[in-house]
Amino acid sequence: MSKTTYWLGVDLGGTKMLAALFTGKFKLLVERKEKTSGQDGAKAVIARLQQLIADTVAEAGIPEKQLGGIGLGVPGPVNVQTGAVISAPNLGWHNLPLQKILERSCHSPVRVFNDVDAGTYGEFRFGTGEQARCVIGLFPGTGIGGGCVYDGKIFTGRENSCFEIGHMLAVPEGRLCGCGRHGCLEAHASRLAIAADSAAAAYRGQAPALLKLAGTDLRELKSRTLAKSIAAGDRAIEDIVRRAARQLGVAAASIVNLIAPDIIVLGGGLVEALEKLYLEEVRAAVMSHAMPLLADRVKIRAAQLGDHASVLGAAALVAEARGKP
Amino acid sequence: MSKTTYWLGVDLGGTKMLAALFTGKFKLLVERKEKTSGQDGAKAVIARLQQLIADTVAEAGIPEKQLGGIGLGVPGPVNVQTGAVISAPNLGWHNLPLQKILERSCHSPVRVFNDVDAGTYGEFRFGTGEQARCVIGLFPGTGIGGGCVYDGKIFTGRENSCFEIGHMLAVPEGRLCGCGRHGCLEAHASRLAIAADSAAAAYRGQAPALLKLAGTDLRELKSRTLAKSIAAGDRAIEDIVRRAARQLGVAAASIVNLIAPDIIVLGGGLVEALEKLYLEEVRAAVMSHAMPLLADRVKIRAAQLGDHASVLGAAALVAEARGKP
Repeated sequence: MSKTTYWLGVDLGGTKMLAALFTGKFKLLVERKEKTSGQDGAKAVIARLQQLIADTVAEAGIPEKQLGGIGLGVPGPVNVQTGAVISAPNLGWHNLPLQKILERSCHSPVRVFNDVDAGTYGEFRFGTGEQARCVIGLFPGTGIGGGCVYDGKIFTGRENSCFEIGHMLAVPEGRLCGCGRHGCLEAHASRLAIAADSAAAAYRGQAPALLKLAGTDLRELKSRTLAKSIAAGDRAIEDIVRRAARQLGVAAASIVNLIAPDIIVLGGGLVEALEKLYLEEVRAAVMSHAMPLLADRVKIRAAQLGDHASVLGAAALVAEARGKP
Repeated sequence: MSKTTYWLGVDLGGTKMLAALFTGKFKLLVERKEKTSGQDGAKAVIARLQQLIADTVAEAGIPEKQLGGIGLGVPGPVNVQTGAVISAPNLGWHNLPLQKILERSCHSPVRVFNDVDAGTYGEFRFGTGEQARCVIGLFPGTGIGGGCVYDGKIFTGRENSCFEIGHMLAVPEGRLCGCGRHGCLEAHASRLAIAADSAAAAYRGQAPALLKLAGTDLRELKSRTLAKSIAAGDRAIEDIVRRAARQLGVAAASIVNLIAPDIIVLGGGLVEALEKLYLEEVRAAVMSHAMPLLADRVKIRAAQLGDHASVLGAAALVAEARGKP
């Protein structure tokens, strides 16, 4: 009997980290979660990450030798040559050589990817992406992440990951963005921007259901809370979400005009909680703002893999990097 | 002595058509021009095109057998699988199977490309593009054309050419575009939009030099005339051009955020006539609107090949399609 090679995918998020061990055919064996607690500093987070990896492998009971590699998705741009994290604002990281650090401690090959790139690749390989020639992933969350898989490969710059759709200019002289500039798409259309507008609407008395459900604290305004408030009749919240989806759709239309993707995959908690309404607006905006000959050909779909997109993608990407696709 | 293979490149423009015959090493042998006169209808234009091709080959005195192929650049989107012209507004063409028509009459392999794609490929291979991994071409003219060469290949959709930067939304509820929508980049920042604003400024008495040079008829407002008026002190015209260049620069910044190109090549008559001023504004806009880690790495340059970019590119592309790169 030949020895199976296993692959580990890790999604390092701002709030939690998820590790999942897969067989050579990418069937899930074991998964484990841990809190990230980025405020403890990079050292503590990395130690927790190393422990999580070790525990996951131990739980599966596979010999260390049969772990083919570890793929990580991180919330920020990465240097695709070195696997360093260029910046991860939610973790307070800046130029952290994560791949090197983990390779030293884990005795396995490590590859570091942007989390949305990994998630888009996951959907491309195992989800709604159908292994199409050009798949775009758009994930509105605290920011708005984007990724592109083209001819089976993640689209990157020569040195750095890219597809920073969240920082396309949406509104000249617009709202302040986390990057310090103004009017970026994510400053207007992310779940955080929606939450801010919704809290203001609740404060003004325009969203009584939401006010009752969650008050006016942004921390309480989760995607599911927004969905509940809309279901309960808060028209103002519905308007806010639809408007944000349209703005993302206008940016998606520019992407369609530029690179004519086959499939656009929309993912993340907001899209999961409000799929019908959200996709409706994005589709309408693409149809009215992209050139008809390109808009007609693009499929716009919800992601299928949920939280597993990034871990599956990262595991498959490290397998491919090791020549085992 | 082995027989050389020659390649013919044709740039079919709205006003003129240019044919150029090249050696296997892409040295120019013969070139000829002809008026397009699109108002005569597709049949007449195609007949003129066939005559121009025949005359160019005849003038070079090469045997028909040694013509390896004919590459054409056309002013509009093309079907990359069939070589049909999907639409060419300046010629009044719609779904014209140009490749098939010419292959029947020319007894040589024919390939049809979007003209800006061909020009971008020309600059990539022989001009300022340095054969970089990702080269973007932006050509503001009557519209604004865009092209992308990625890993040595023109970036296209599965079926159709793309990179329609001119139809990215620049101004919500903005000016009427030739495509029928409002606020597209080319409705605000093309040479035609600049000419319209300049004519209005001349009419209002804000551009005395331009009024004297060319009056208020858009047909007379060529790029060189605009350059002369600026040199003669028309500040209003300088403001108009700078503003348009900034708008194109903002769109270029979105492209940088998305696909992190190595080089952006700016070409066409307007850029040639006003290179310094134009590039200054585009560079400034990219630096202030793209993410620093991506903006820092992109070179922004003027095209080098002028009118020869498209014929060279089209000739080299058909050579590559025939397995002779």
